[in-house]
Amino acid sequence: MIEVLKYSNLVDTIQLLQRPYLDHTRLKTQVLEILNCVRDNGDSAIYDFIFQFERIRMDNFKVSEMECNHAANDVSDDLKAAINVAYENIKKFHLAQQQDTMQVETMPGVICMRKSVAIERVGLYIPGGSAALFSTLLMLSVPAILAGCKEIVICTPATSNGKLNPNVAYIAQLLGIKEIYKIGGAHAIAALAFGTTSIPKVNKIFGPGNQFVTIAKQLVQEYGVAIDMPAGPSEVLVIADANANPKFIAADLLSQAEHGPDSQVVLLSNDVFIFDKVIKEINAQLTSLSRSEISKSALQYAKFVLTKTIDEAICLSNAYAPEHLILNFEAADLHIDKIVNAGSVFIGAYSPESVGDYASGTNHTLPTNAYAKAYSGVSIDSFVKKITFQKLNYLGLKNIGDTVIKMAMAEGLDAHANAVKVRLDSLEV
Amino acid sequence: MIEVLKYSNLVDTIQLLQRPYLDHTRLKTQVLEILNCVRDNGDSAIYDFIFQFERIRMDNFKVSEMECNHAANDVSDDLKAAINVAYENIKKFHLAQQQDTMQVETMPGVICMRKSVAIERVGLYIPGGSAALFSTLLMLSVPAILAGCKEIVICTPATSNGKLNPNVAYIAQLLGIKEIYKIGGAHAIAALAFGTTSIPKVNKIFGPGNQFVTIAKQLVQEYGVAIDMPAGPSEVLVIADANANPKFIAADLLSQAEHGPDSQVVLLSNDVFIFDKVIKEINAQLTSLSRSEISKSALQYAKFVLTKTIDEAICLSNAYAPEHLILNFEAADLHIDKIVNAGSVFIGAYSPESVGDYASGTNHTLPTNAYAKAYSGVSIDSFVKKITFQKLNYLGLKNIGDTVIKMAMAEGLDAHANAVKVRLDSLEV
Repeated sequence: MIEVLKYSNLVDTIQLLQRPYLDHTRLKTQVLEILNCVRDNGDSAIYDFIFQFERIRMDNFKVSEMECNHAANDVSDDLKAAINVAYENIKKFHLAQQQDTMQVETMPGVICMRKSVAIERVGLYIPGGSAALFSTLLMLSVPAILAGCKEIVICTPATSNGKLNPNVAYIAQLLGIKEIYKIGGAHAIAALAFGTTSIPKVNKIFGPGNQFVTIAKQLVQEYGVAIDMPAGPSEVLVIADANANPKFIAADLLSQAEHGPDSQVVLLSNDVFIFDKVIKEINAQLTSLSRSEISKSALQYAKFVLTKTIDEAICLSNAYAPEHLILNFEAADLHIDKIVNAGSVFIGAYSPESVGDYASGTNHTLPTNAYAKAYSGVSIDSFVKKITFQKLNYLGLKNIGDTVIKMAMAEGLDAHANAVKVRLDSLEV
Repeated sequence: MIEVLKYSNLVDTIQLLQRPYLDHTRLKTQVLEILNCVRDNGDSAIYDFIFQFERIRMDNFKVSEMECNHAANDVSDDLKAAINVAYENIKKFHLAQQQDTMQVETMPGVICMRKSVAIERVGLYIPGGSAALFSTLLMLSVPAILAGCKEIVICTPATSNGKLNPNVAYIAQLLGIKEIYKIGGAHAIAALAFGTTSIPKVNKIFGPGNQFVTIAKQLVQEYGVAIDMPAGPSEVLVIADANANPKFIAADLLSQAEHGPDSQVVLLSNDVFIFDKVIKEINAQLTSLSRSEISKSALQYAKFVLTKTIDEAICLSNAYAPEHLILNFEAADLHIDKIVNAGSVFIGAYSPESVGDYASGTNHTLPTNAYAKAYSGVSIDSFVKKITFQKLNYLGLKNIGDTVIKMAMAEGLDAHANAVKVRLDSLEV
């Protein structure tokens, strides 16, 4: 039975919503060993880890084009059609994020530019495990391709019989992705970070995963590899009023809860009567869901909070900074300017989180664990660097020279001033 | 005497340019102690560290408005005018980076949006030490203000007599920044990350610093604070041809070398005769520079490489990924599309790095240590999250529902499918 808390003040209530602190010290040591082993022993270490963790004796973790095409044949036309629709929507939304080179003449003769340039090599981790999340491949590879990344390397665990997941294969085929390795876990992250004889080292690693993967991503940053963002368990926060349909709320909370026992589920409402209705609906819907045991574990820690107003709920949500925020109340779109911290927001009764997870077009790789206070979800931006350029001509340097010389001298950096002076002097000759 | 290396092949030559690996294990332990001490003891720990490291008994590290205005009076009108010019240019270039809310209807009834929302609380670290880098305050606070950050907190070490640096004071006054603390070093980063009775905890920390500051920034990330980017020593890579003026090249290399003994200085040229000319010029210019001892230390490790062509030099530069890249050769702007990895690029003979360091308008907070392969310099983007939104109406959910249900079922997540089904069912009634 989920307890309904009452909003008293922001500080105390946000305390009640505090996410559990996960101490990873022990796990870190274990992951570090895996990383070092892959760094030192390359491919052979990876084959060993695959056998150790998955009990698969794999001949070749690199997926050939034939293997990929073969696996893709197992996907039904129905599912292919669904994937195609999702692909088109994701492409449309991410295409609109592309930025042209921007140019500003800040002073006469001083031209400044900013240009998006693709990160050359990216690694995309696609989790398998309890459910093979092929949708993540769409979410990561579509922006990578649109950004123009030259090398896109996929790591994903094999199915229990050592094969490539057919849905992953179909998406790879659809998008023309050739470099796929059947490797999951921390050793996959190590392979992408350090490179091996058969796997190229990448500049940035993307994708969700279990705690091993998450910690491995954190740790490889020390070796100069970038990652998409730090990660914690998945979360949803629903704000609902008396008009919201308890069935919808229950279904949304359950769709979050089924991810794992550590999923964070929060419901805020200004309607004192809604909580019981939602709990009743949760129990009713649970009976027909396949992952009900996982959901029940997660729901043990669900937090329901009664607020005085919707604005109070929004304020609390901003302090919590949820990965997914569902605004299931009257005229929700009039409130979106008040949303300050969230990964992705679902507006109104007909926008369940699952549309964003798969097909609306927005990215589902989002900041968890209150990282939404400072991080964005994955987008085209995540796959590019924005390089600045400046070009000054004779006039430009004459216009700006004095400013630079004075500031450099005031910082005690006279060689900086000198780089301008030698040029100005040469012009005066 | 700087040795001139010859380009043989990319792999071997990039090996020669390898940056020194800095082992921070011992320093990390020391920094971690400082962080823990500030977290546990707050303000009093900070006063202790200020005394311990700077031998200053400070009454109040918080700068009052009166103290700030008073300090700003010491800035000459000349320097104020220079700062004002730099401010206007930086503002112009960063203003052009602002993005409007983007909206795409990916399918009829499925509206997706992306909106830039300012990070609420940011901490800006402005280094003092051997030179008080007030220009960094301009570079960080201008985009923070343009982005709309609600709380901008400055930490900067006091001058040796315990006062606020006048130039920092003037910029704070100019920009209307009120929250300034005279704290430098790892304890400043700790204060910003954890908060104390008098210093607010921030969501993201920006700014360069010595190794203590750099390591502290790395470490506080584990506590959920974001940072602008990882950092190493500053770098310049100059590509020059036979037409380049050796005076200009020497001055540019020296302006990098004066930053510190660990500064990285690289010159690539396809002209075998230029290196001696540059070395001669370096020696001539060194005699009149105040920081010549620092520069000499850095130049010991300078790398000069003779390439066969300019394209070979660009290729090598991309593999090195310099923070600053100066293209001092004929028709350099025709080559900018070949630049893949760099922080900021200076095009042509009249664009010394120092214009970008102070006043051209581009940001001088840039990725070092080859991080330019995956990271961008600071921009408006660094001070916002890009939150996505989706709003579906009845028709939208009907259009996309089947796609979501099929994909969710294929991932084994039937509660995700159910969140769509309960809504579609309710519509059919």
